[in-house]
Amino acid sequence: MEKGRLEAFSDGVIAIIITIMVLELKVPVGKLGADISALKPLFPVFVSYILSFIYVGIYWNNHHHMMQAVESVNGAILWANMHLLFWLSLVPFVTAWMGENDFARWPVTCYGIVLIMNACAYTILLFALIRHHGRNSVLAKAVGSDWKDKISIAIYATAIAISWLNSTISFILYIVVACIWFIPDKRIERQLVGEEPPCEK
Amino acid sequence: MEKGRLEAFSDGVIAIIITIMVLELKVPVGKLGADISALKPLFPVFVSYILSFIYVGIYWNNHHHMMQAVESVNGAILWANMHLLFWLSLVPFVTAWMGENDFARWPVTCYGIVLIMNACAYTILLFALIRHHGRNSVLAKAVGSDWKDKISIAIYATAIAISWLNSTISFILYIVVACIWFIPDKRIERQLVGEEPPCEK
Amino acid sequence: MEKGRLEAFSDGVIAIIITIMVLELKVPVGKLGADISALKPLFPVFVSYILSFIYVGIYWNNHHHMMQAVESVNGAILWANMHLLFWLSLVPFVTAWMGENDFARWPVTCYGIVLIMNACAYTILLFALIRHHGRNSVLAKAVGSDWKDKISIAIYATAIAISWLNSTISFILYIVVACIWFIPDKRIERQLVGEEPPCEK
Amino acid sequence: MEKGRLEAFSDGVIAIIITIMVLELKVPVGKLGADISALKPLFPVFVSYILSFIYVGIYWNNHHHMMQAVESVNGAILWANMHLLFWLSLVPFVTAWMGENDFARWPVTCYGIVLIMNACAYTILLFALIRHHGRNSVLAKAVGSDWKDKISIAIYATAIAISWLNSTISFILYIVVACIWFIPDKRIERQLVGEEPPCEK
Repeated sequence: MEKGRLEAFSDGVIAIIITIMVLELKVPVGKLGADISALKPLFPVFVSYILSFIYVGIYWNNHHHMMQAVESVNGAILWANMHLLFWLSLVPFVTAWMGENDFARWPVTCYGIVLIMNACAYTILLFALIRHHGRNSVLAKAVGSDWKDKISIAIYATAIAISWLNSTISFILYIVVACIWFIPDKRIERQLVGEEPPCEK
Repeated sequence: MEKGRLEAFSDGVIAIIITIMVLELKVPVGKLGADISALKPLFPVFVSYILSFIYVGIYWNNHHHMMQAVESVNGAILWANMHLLFWLSLVPFVTAWMGENDFARWPVTCYGIVLIMNACAYTILLFALIRHHGRNSVLAKAVGSDWKDKISIAIYATAIAISWLNSTISFILYIVVACIWFIPDKRIERQLVGEEPPCEK
Repeated sequence: MEKGRLEAFSDGVIAIIITIMVLELKVPVGKLGADISALKPLFPVFVSYILSFIYVGIYWNNHHHMMQAVESVNGAILWANMHLLFWLSLVPFVTAWMGENDFARWPVTCYGIVLIMNACAYTILLFALIRHHGRNSVLAKAVGSDWKDKISIAIYATAIAISWLNSTISFILYIVVACIWFIPDKRIERQLVGEEPPCEK
Repeated sequence: MEKGRLEAFSDGVIAIIITIMVLELKVPVGKLGADISALKPLFPVFVSYILSFIYVGIYWNNHHHMMQAVESVNGAILWANMHLLFWLSLVPFVTAWMGENDFARWPVTCYGIVLIMNACAYTILLFALIRHHGRNSVLAKAVGSDWKDKISIAIYATAIAISWLNSTISFILYIVVACIWFIPDKRIERQLVGEEPPCEK
């Protein structure tokens, strides 16, 4: 099966997820709705929106990189991808919950749980792709030891535990993971380049 | 006519349908909005969201499989596809209605009716495609006797009837149909593979 | 310039327009929210949703047919297309307004005005395309005398005038136009077929 | 890396941004909801919707033109594009805020700030693309001295300053910038044409 429609469908879903989050920035109305002070209560919602925008952007970015190294898909991959999209679709909910409650303990914990589930779903999709393409494929070589996945899940878990003491530290830890992933997965890019010009040597 | 834009448009509509359902998970606000107990009333909404996410995922998956075996489309196919999208577009409404009323009798009945209409619309689209490609096409051979379609419509009808006695059993029956369809339509995949490598024999 | 992205963007916008209309079907809540009688006030909203779904479907369908005969686009065409999308984007608003006010006089009038503007925008796009491709292009020949466009604008105008006497008749006239357009623009299809296989003769 | 998915994802996000703005046109309800006078309070919302529709249309248009001259993308370009989409995603919020407060001082100021940030993000994306393709690429030659970018940022800044005296003048200045950009970036089109048919001379 071709990968084209899986990419198009994922692009569509991720585009909607990243955009509907902005709907949580509710327009201030009423007597003081036109004043700059009306934006103040929106500030935590805006901060959590920025973080989630970057997170969803990272997932799209890595999905893009991963799919570049893919040649075809099968039924298991379609469902592994759908599973990832499911957990991504919960990001707007936990983002809004966290933002509207000033980074309180429980919303911050749930945000971390959704991030962990996304990381797991991404890993499952990666495994499904590697299994389909074989241990010697570009993808399998490119990924190698996925320390980034493991370290981010560890930081998420720490953040969830710490949220019971101080949820601000948890939020900072989520930012740290975003920074780690900000740089797209160079491994796949390098592997692809390394494979394509064999005439160069 | 080419099938490209029909696929792109369907992908777009299905991507939006699957994503707007999450908007029904209304963010808890108020004094206790930050507590984990605030999520409790959202539980049935979340459960019905998961089921509908899987159902819409199944339809996208099978649409993807079906279109792989299609070479071109005509006016009748465009409208049969639009008809399927119409019934799919009602899934978010019945999902939210069912979830927000704790799986009460009437919402569960209507959910079943929308599922039956979707199954019928899918079958009509399949017939329109087979009629356009001929009785000897890959698609016609691949589909063969569509026991899955018939059995799921029968289970839906049973679930609707039972909903008057016990709507929980109806909901379990909907899950059963989802499990039956979870595995993508291997028939088309097999038929396509059987055609493509004739050199293998 | 290539037409690919214009098609993709239009597909995206039309897919969203057709899907957000369903959000006007507000889920009934409250004590009697789970009863079938709770759906009764939604009935006119549902009826107007069906009509608009078909209208937007017709526009997508004809857009699809028209673009098949197009080879390239220019700046004027991009803006003519954007203009059409603008008027299409107002369809959800007038649909909801008409449905939630039981087909009252003013909403029915405005619905008709938006339909007229859509018809005009479509004609402008067609002219921009013909001007770019030349009087002897497939498109120009295919369209010929566009009696359908003219007749539907005439019926829309009649419906708007009649809405001051009886808005139900206006609504029926809108259904009549939808029926006229239901069949996709065979002219372009025929013209394309007539051009492509010159070896057949 | 191929540019296809970046285009598709951007198309998706921009299509959603341009369409969700219409959701701010809240359907009038209540006793006088069916009267034409019910549309009167929506008028400033509608006017700001039109302006933002044109602005987002301009960005899509120029994005389209810019990407035509692009051959491949890298990680930096993906993030520069995501950055542009972030600022575009704030347009619906400031549009609604401005429209619902009758073009009051602060909303008009914020609208201008978001427009400036969009202009900057677009310029950053342009620089990232030129850096990737080289100083002698079609794109670099096509853009040349970008007086339009500079002039529009200057007008935005003026509009923000003036909004403290008279926010209506600011709004008119925003319309002026839209008029400047309305014509798509001919430079790229000309450069592309100039390159492709070398046989013509």
